Formats: sequence, structure tokens, C-alpha cells
Amino acid sequence: MAFADLLDAFASHDPVPGGGSASAVAGALGASLLLMVAAMPKTKSGTPEETADLSAAAARIRPLRDRLTMLVDEDSEAYNAVVAAFKLPKGTDEEKAARKDAIQAGTRLATEVPLDTMRASRDALRHAVIVARNGNRNATSDVGVAIELLLCAVKGAGLNVDINLGGLADKDYVERARWERQDLERTAAEEAARAQDQLQ
Amino acid sequence: MAFADLLDAFASHDPVPGGGSASAVAGALGASLLLMVAAMPKTKSGTPEETADLSAAAARIRPLRDRLTMLVDEDSEAYNAVVAAFKLPKGTDEEKAARKDAIQAGTRLATEVPLDTMRASRDALRHAVIVARNGNRNATSDVGVAIELLLCAVKGAGLNVDINLGGLADKDYVERARWERQDLERTAAEEAARAQDQLQ
Repeated sequence: MAFADLLDAFASHDPVPGGGSASAVAGALGASLLLMVAAMPKTKSGTPEETADLSAAAARIRPLRDRLTMLVDEDSEAYNAVVAAFKLPKGTDEEKAARKDAIQAGTRLATEVPLDTMRASRDALRHAVIVARNGNRNATSDVGVAIELLLCAVKGAGLNVDINLGGLADKDYVERARWERQDLERTAAEEAARAQDQLQ
Repeated sequence: MAFADLLDAFASHDPVPGGGSASAVAGALGASLLLMVAAMPKTKSGTPEETADLSAAAARIRPLRDRLTMLVDEDSEAYNAVVAAFKLPKGTDEEKAARKDAIQAGTRLATEVPLDTMRASRDALRHAVIVARNGNRNATSDVGVAIELLLCAVKGAGLNVDINLGGLADKDYVERARWERQDLERTAAEEAARAQDQLQ
């Protein structure tokens, strides 16, 4: 889809693509900027070690970037599954039970997708410190923007996790997911601060 | 340009598109999400006043969204102008003077473009409070993500303003631009907090 059309899809009154997909876009964009700096021929001081460290970081960031790109669509699909489940018939007790199960399964998927966006963005931030430490000094602001975008992805996806956790009946899962969500936001902030320290 | 190609353009070692353009993307995406919620048929409590307020907000947000979309390309063009200026001949005194002027003009444009990204994103945040107050409660997380994206655009563009201010000789302009940059970041944070209060 063309970028201008994607923006219009976000702007239309249709709830998808919405905030969950937009958070994944932010993460994919941040990871892409890290790949840009890691791929620049010029490194901080020009040593072969810096080039090797940046190549190794890029090899780990690229699959995270690709995963985040896929999550843009997966978030909309998960939302559609929840909407479809709510529209299932509820005439008989069997239908009611099947509908309830489908809503729970859809809502759980709609929780796991933004959790995955948080995971991939936090993991990309883990490698940002390597890019910040070894990358071209002329690209300092690019690394800084990448960090902001990945933090934005973590926070935005976290809001989507919260909304969906509210609709889940499995208390054990809710407790685990809530713990992981808080842990991801906390560790993402730590990794971001560590990378930003390298940019000073 | 297709979205996947745009991500690859950000990921390539070519410095453009870079962090300045990525900040404008974040702003355009955040403004688009505000437009989505403002356009939903369902409003907070369903009154005609809410619909009217949301329509008025959308009419103000849409040109900001379109401006942010244009700034994605304008940032890359400004960078290219600076690079072209540095490549001008510097054999004679006239050539040296012309090159110096071109570098200053290019760097000033490369400062104004991210300042414009900050201005448009801060202004979109001013209208976010209306969307947060009157919008569909089911879209609370979408407004929350929009706020994060617009704040990310302000911070990311601010890093690009800082980098370019360092290369400018006109001390009066530098002082004014630095003041405005700080004011934009501060007021953006205030507007964001005000909008977030409405989401509680």
C-alpha cells in the first residue's frame, strides 16, 4: 500500500488500522533508522571492530524490523477477529458458549499482537546501544529519533494491551500478561536511557 | 511510494530519508489517528454538540496532517541542499563566499523544516484534547497512541533542530530558533498532558 493511502486508511473512521497498527509502524520505522546508521560506511572512529559490531547489531535488528512490519497488519486482523466473534449468533446455549469462546480467543490474540510489538521494539532498543556506541557521529540525531520511535511503539502498544486485558476472563493469563507488559515498558526505558548515554 | 519501500529507504545507508523525515511520519500518523476518532459516527455520549466539536477539530487537524506529510519529503530535500552546498567549488574567494552563503542558507532551511514539524505536531496536540473529550470511548487507546506519536514527532524533530542550529552563524536567528524549539517542546508536553487527562 502506498504511504499516502496508508495514512488515509489510519485517518478514515474505520477503527482498523488503528493505534495498535500505528504503534507497530513506529517500531518498524525506529528499527529501520537503526539499520540505516548500522549500514553507513563511516563509523564512529573507523575501526574494523566498530564495523563488525554494527554488522552484528544489524543482523539482529533486521528480523525485528521485519516482524514489526508484519505486526502492522496482524493488529488489524486481530481486531477484525474480535468484531467477527461478537457478531456470532447467540440464540441457543451452544451458540452462546461458542460465541463466548470465540470472543475470548480473539481478545487474547488482540492482546498478544501488541505484546509482540512491545517485545520486538524493546529488543530493538537493546541493540540501539551498540549502534549509538559505534555509529557515525553525523547520524547522532537519527539514532536519537530511532530511540524515540521505539519507545513510542512500546508505550502505544502497551495501551492496546491494557484495553484488551480488560476483556479477558482467564485471570492467570491476565496476571502474567500484565506483569510482562510492565516489565517490557520498564526495560525498554532502561535500554533507551543506556543508548542515549552513548550519544552524549 | 509503497510503505514497505519507504521502510527500506529509511533502512538503507543513504542518510536520506533520515530522522527528520521519520519524525514527520510519526506526526502525520498521530494526526491521522486523531482524524479517525473525530470521524467515528459514535461519540462519547452521542450528543450533536460532541459531533460538532469533533468536526471542528478535524477541520483544523487535517491541514496539519497534510503539512506533516509534505514535511517527510521536505526534510530530505533540505538535507540534500546542504550536501550540495558543501560540494560547491572553493577555488577563488568569490567561490568560497558563495559556498559559505549556500551552506548557511541550506542549514537554515534544514532547521526550519524540523521546526515546522514541531509546530504542526504541537498544534495537532492542541486539538487532541477536543478529540479526547468528545470521542468514542472505545477509541481511547487510539487517542493515547496519537498523543505518543505526536510527542515523538516533537522530540525527534527537536533533535534535528539542535543538530542544524550548531552549524549556523546568525546568532540572532539561532537564539530565536532555540527559544522557539524549547517553547514548542514544553507546550507540546502540556497539551499532551491535558489531552491524556481527558482519557482517564
